[in-house]
Amino acid sequence: MFSCILKEPQAMTNPLHHLMNPSSIAIAGASNNFMKMGTMHALSILKDGFKGELYPLHPKEKTVLGLKAYGSVEELPVVPDMAILVVPASQVADLLERFGEKGTKSAIIITAGFGEMGDEGRRMQERLNEISRRYGIRFLGPNCMGIINSAASLNVTVMPYAMGPGSLGLASQSGTYVTQSLPYLAKRGIRFSKVVSVGNCADIDLADALEYLGEDDATRAVALYIEGLRDVPRFLEIARRITSSKPVIAQYVGGSAAGARSSLSHTGSLAAPDHLYDGLFRQAGIIRLHSIEELYLFGNMLAHQPPLEGRRIGVITNSGGPGSAMANALEKYGLEVPRFTPELQEKLRPLLPPHAPCGNPVDLTFSLEIDILSHRIPEVVLASGEVDGIVIHGAMRSGFVKEAYPHFRELINNEPVDKILAAMPMSIDKALSIARYGKPIAVSSFYDRDDDYTAAYQDHGIPVFDAPEKAAAAMGILLRYREVRKRKPPKPISLPSIDAEAARMLSECLAAGRKNLDEHESKALLRRYGVPVTEEILVRSPEEAEEACARLGLPLVLKATAANITHKTGKGLVRVGLASRIQAAQAFAEIQEAAGRAVPVIAYRKVEGEREFVCGLIDTPGFGPSVMFGLGGIFTEALADTVFRPAPLSDQDAEEMIHDIRAHTLLGPFRGMPAVNIQSLARIIHLLSLMPILHPSIAEIDLNPVIIEGAEPVAVDALIVLKGD
Amino acid sequence: MFSCILKEPQAMTNPLHHLMNPSSIAIAGASNNFMKMGTMHALSILKDGFKGELYPLHPKEKTVLGLKAYGSVEELPVVPDMAILVVPASQVADLLERFGEKGTKSAIIITAGFGEMGDEGRRMQERLNEISRRYGIRFLGPNCMGIINSAASLNVTVMPYAMGPGSLGLASQSGTYVTQSLPYLAKRGIRFSKVVSVGNCADIDLADALEYLGEDDATRAVALYIEGLRDVPRFLEIARRITSSKPVIAQYVGGSAAGARSSLSHTGSLAAPDHLYDGLFRQAGIIRLHSIEELYLFGNMLAHQPPLEGRRIGVITNSGGPGSAMANALEKYGLEVPRFTPELQEKLRPLLPPHAPCGNPVDLTFSLEIDILSHRIPEVVLASGEVDGIVIHGAMRSGFVKEAYPHFRELINNEPVDKILAAMPMSIDKALSIARYGKPIAVSSFYDRDDDYTAAYQDHGIPVFDAPEKAAAAMGILLRYREVRKRKPPKPISLPSIDAEAARMLSECLAAGRKNLDEHESKALLRRYGVPVTEEILVRSPEEAEEACARLGLPLVLKATAANITHKTGKGLVRVGLASRIQAAQAFAEIQEAAGRAVPVIAYRKVEGEREFVCGLIDTPGFGPSVMFGLGGIFTEALADTVFRPAPLSDQDAEEMIHDIRAHTLLGPFRGMPAVNIQSLARIIHLLSLMPILHPSIAEIDLNPVIIEGAEPVAVDALIVLKGD
Repeated sequence: MFSCILKEPQAMTNPLHHLMNPSSIAIAGASNNFMKMGTMHALSILKDGFKGELYPLHPKEKTVLGLKAYGSVEELPVVPDMAILVVPASQVADLLERFGEKGTKSAIIITAGFGEMGDEGRRMQERLNEISRRYGIRFLGPNCMGIINSAASLNVTVMPYAMGPGSLGLASQSGTYVTQSLPYLAKRGIRFSKVVSVGNCADIDLADALEYLGEDDATRAVALYIEGLRDVPRFLEIARRITSSKPVIAQYVGGSAAGARSSLSHTGSLAAPDHLYDGLFRQAGIIRLHSIEELYLFGNMLAHQPPLEGRRIGVITNSGGPGSAMANALEKYGLEVPRFTPELQEKLRPLLPPHAPCGNPVDLTFSLEIDILSHRIPEVVLASGEVDGIVIHGAMRSGFVKEAYPHFRELINNEPVDKILAAMPMSIDKALSIARYGKPIAVSSFYDRDDDYTAAYQDHGIPVFDAPEKAAAAMGILLRYREVRKRKPPKPISLPSIDAEAARMLSECLAAGRKNLDEHESKALLRRYGVPVTEEILVRSPEEAEEACARLGLPLVLKATAANITHKTGKGLVRVGLASRIQAAQAFAEIQEAAGRAVPVIAYRKVEGEREFVCGLIDTPGFGPSVMFGLGGIFTEALADTVFRPAPLSDQDAEEMIHDIRAHTLLGPFRGMPAVNIQSLARIIHLLSLMPILHPSIAEIDLNPVIIEGAEPVAVDALIVLKGD
Repeated sequence: MFSCILKEPQAMTNPLHHLMNPSSIAIAGASNNFMKMGTMHALSILKDGFKGELYPLHPKEKTVLGLKAYGSVEELPVVPDMAILVVPASQVADLLERFGEKGTKSAIIITAGFGEMGDEGRRMQERLNEISRRYGIRFLGPNCMGIINSAASLNVTVMPYAMGPGSLGLASQSGTYVTQSLPYLAKRGIRFSKVVSVGNCADIDLADALEYLGEDDATRAVALYIEGLRDVPRFLEIARRITSSKPVIAQYVGGSAAGARSSLSHTGSLAAPDHLYDGLFRQAGIIRLHSIEELYLFGNMLAHQPPLEGRRIGVITNSGGPGSAMANALEKYGLEVPRFTPELQEKLRPLLPPHAPCGNPVDLTFSLEIDILSHRIPEVVLASGEVDGIVIHGAMRSGFVKEAYPHFRELINNEPVDKILAAMPMSIDKALSIARYGKPIAVSSFYDRDDDYTAAYQDHGIPVFDAPEKAAAAMGILLRYREVRKRKPPKPISLPSIDAEAARMLSECLAAGRKNLDEHESKALLRRYGVPVTEEILVRSPEEAEEACARLGLPLVLKATAANITHKTGKGLVRVGLASRIQAAQAFAEIQEAAGRAVPVIAYRKVEGEREFVCGLIDTPGFGPSVMFGLGGIFTEALADTVFRPAPLSDQDAEEMIHDIRAHTLLGPFRGMPAVNIQSLARIIHLLSLMPILHPSIAEIDLNPVIIEGAEPVAVDALIVLKGD
């Protein structure tokens, strides 16, 4: 489970290497009826330029789509590299077995009706896995839509892919997002390297797809649509390897109740709450996005534009509204729109009408001199060294002219619009040449690919967005990826040896049928691993309480402790701020009275500090163990300022996590208090994260509050909960 | 300035009533050169169906665009209802004066180069206002792009408007957003009632446009693009009147440094920080959006769909991914995706393939039976009474067929695609008929208006979004507007009479050249208006400190006070928790010593409470006075949980404001503490908000902390800052 511990990435062959590059394909389920899904898949293979051989299987037809059809797998003249199965669910397993026998090593199972269909479907799906293991035939799906390998002109989906090779890789648990959206993507100039519809992830799963796209040289950014992950630690390990050198973005839709229910019935995925996926993505260096549009648009930006090397963005426009909107949005995304130096403004001035703003934003004001907007101003700005990237709004030509044409055609004697366009000056090549500065460019235009500027930009990898704020947001995503790249490389997690006394405590507790360690035991166990907890002693009499004052120092805290005592404060079982031996003895007696029986009492010196945090360990079905950190004390729930990470976690990653809380300024020097010792705090979280490995019987740990005394964190309360049966 | 106080809305004629409905128009700046902006304006008027007379003015031409041209205003054969000026800036004022003399009452000044151009431009703009006042000629602009009145087929912009009459009204400080975006809007089926480009707002401003669109029966929702407001209180008063019965949405881009700089150079607008506009919009009932795309898309949704009467949304799709994404997004926006009852599922079952999910989302799975998806399932779901609205993904026909056609054309002997389409079953009318349930519908499709379903939906007022999450977000906006509609009607604000003693204190302070009242004075002034502050006395000797213990109760707080003493705590000038007369006397002496001189000291009983807030009054250039409320105490800055509202504010509105903080659960019963007396807290904010009216010399008030003792708020520290010269 915890494969990321002390393990180097394994040199193994990803099953998608073979599956994405077949030289021969057999398809079962294609016919001569173009309304059948199998036929659509076969047509995409045939029409979109696949160079290898396609062998249709058909029980009756002699030819399918003009190709000789075969009645059975046995009759195939070759061992096909890959099989595509688009047959009824009841026939899939037998057919997969025939291909296994034949020696085929890859399959795509389009057919639905497996793991997403309850117990019976899960059994059917398990049979596919059994066949896969027996014959070494690796498969995608079931319940998927296929693949695209644009460089190989291989399209195994149901819609045409016509955009040519690009650099964005996509893996999706929704088939729609790899095929029904293709016309939409073509209209937006979005180009893929490889596309993988993973469906139910019975065999090849999202982690495999991520690993494959991560290693694929043609893929410069990876986009993931996720409904739920099968193996969180493996996904995390792979993602962490990739994200330092290649951007990965993801949309996750299983975080709400309805999203989880829908994901279960769609792909049989077990979902987990949003905050856990937030933590997973942060830990993995994956940029989380929240809509399929963002996934496509910003993925395309990341894949086709150079990285951003600083925060300074130049805004170039022919209209004040989009200029203001882009400037405003850029700053919100953490970028800067620096006022240009007088020298740069001086150089820009001759290109602009008198009084036009040139201090950044540069606003050409309404003008049809698109060469100035799209080429001459950007040249000067990019050459200045004053920006790290630019956004441009308003470059347009044929789209504008065609839209306006109905109004002015009579003024030009109804000359055809194409003739007008041919006579107009044209400098798209110059506009494209600004890419040579190697700085990211995002364009915003109200004109789609009907406009020759929009089409040319998109065809040359300069994304054009249909609103100014989206171009700004795309730069914001580049900035977020810059922060991922700047992360320290992951540190291997080294496990301390298992503490025998801790193990003994847990075994005894389990043997006694108890569900949790009490506060004193919990602290004792954690102290053995170096978690800073209150130094405390058990006292059993007023006299021992008095002695504790001398041993521990004042003011003292006394607390009843026992595994079955909860809500101590409300029941009068806690006394804080005891300032003398007399008060201590008296408080001990009062606690016994409040308890109504003799209860053990723990004593510790009151920990003084105004900053309180909470650290914890939780375990979530479908996700696994996670650690939690947040604001603690009485306002914990009201402020809900907590962050999560999958366990285990290095202390270095725990440090990063700590800074993710909203109120992170509390961690620095604050109102006369010293900066928190972040290393100590991170070490607590790191140690909690190791507990499920060291002691698998531990389900949950709650340290609340962890008070910062001076600069040092001390866990003042602790609870360890054990796993049930 | 505070026009909303005790004043009924005035029955006045909005200048746009006249300007938007001219029966005759004169235009200066149009010629026979179609590349000139004035010509483009004239062409839009002529070509898009204006029914009245158009009179071009031209110094040389005899005819312009086939119409008789006039050499001067004097020569015009009639008094035109409206003049459009697209001439060089230097000629605008004289020409406006000529029209004023002629008797024209409305003008649109397209020309730029006025208030956005520094001092000289501002002077030129002021001259326009002077002419306007002298002749009673009201004008839009300068530096604007014109208007559209779709019902009157009047288009005074530079691009064709071809979508026909709609119900969305738009007022914009960016001309681009009312004209360059028209082709973009046409492709998305977005239809306007009226459009107003306000430009520099020299005369007719955004508030006028909002008022006009609010009163306009053809307009069912109002969208505003804002760079900065000229008169915040007037805008607020008008907006508040409108939003209870008509949705208003707004984008504001002046909130960042670069946004503010750009707005100033674009329209000469003075911007203010985002959080003030957040407060203004909340107070006004305006829904704030953050991109022009949201403004258009969600404005169109609000304008053309019925209101949402509950939170329950049905999700109907032919694809699991969009279904999961919509369900997940809907819940994030506060909507519910309720699991359908077994009875409803039973009714849906026969419409779906075996095992297809029908519990909500309803997932038909990939299917070309669009009538089931778009009509039969929605009918059953809407008739059930189990939902308040529906979202649909995947309804498509001609778009899909045309995209797939290149792949299958040979299979059908290259029959033309139109023939295929003509032979396919067609039931768009039935799909549209579900609108009769009167519940909001949002559609998501990857097909644009090339698809006949998309076009038909849009033409009948059912918005089609190009991504599932946008359809969900549109429902979320309807929910936000539902919350605006449910607000209590605004309560008139009644002013208390001016307290003579308070006025005297302020005059004395001003006369002495002081910049602020000290803590004791500040509290004394506020107490006179009923703000709950600590009951305190000034002590000037150790003996008086001892007496204070008896008079005020223990534990006592002693604090040095003087207008020029700040950061008291750090300097040892504050002593809290004094538990006896002896401690009080000693603390008094220590404070004197720490001050190094004899200082007055205030004494009050320590206010006990764990919940601390901050209340304040601030004054911002370009915006005016605002009140602030937020979490207080030592974590104020770290948590940054504060909200703002423009002053003045009724106590009712202050209550609403208080609940806007993130940590609002602190206000209820909390960890054994009683619920905060919200009325008392609201009254404090209400009273602070009145101070600039009662005492115009007050610039700022800071109450930090306001501690909740039991249920009651008490201001424990207070500072009143006076206006400078």
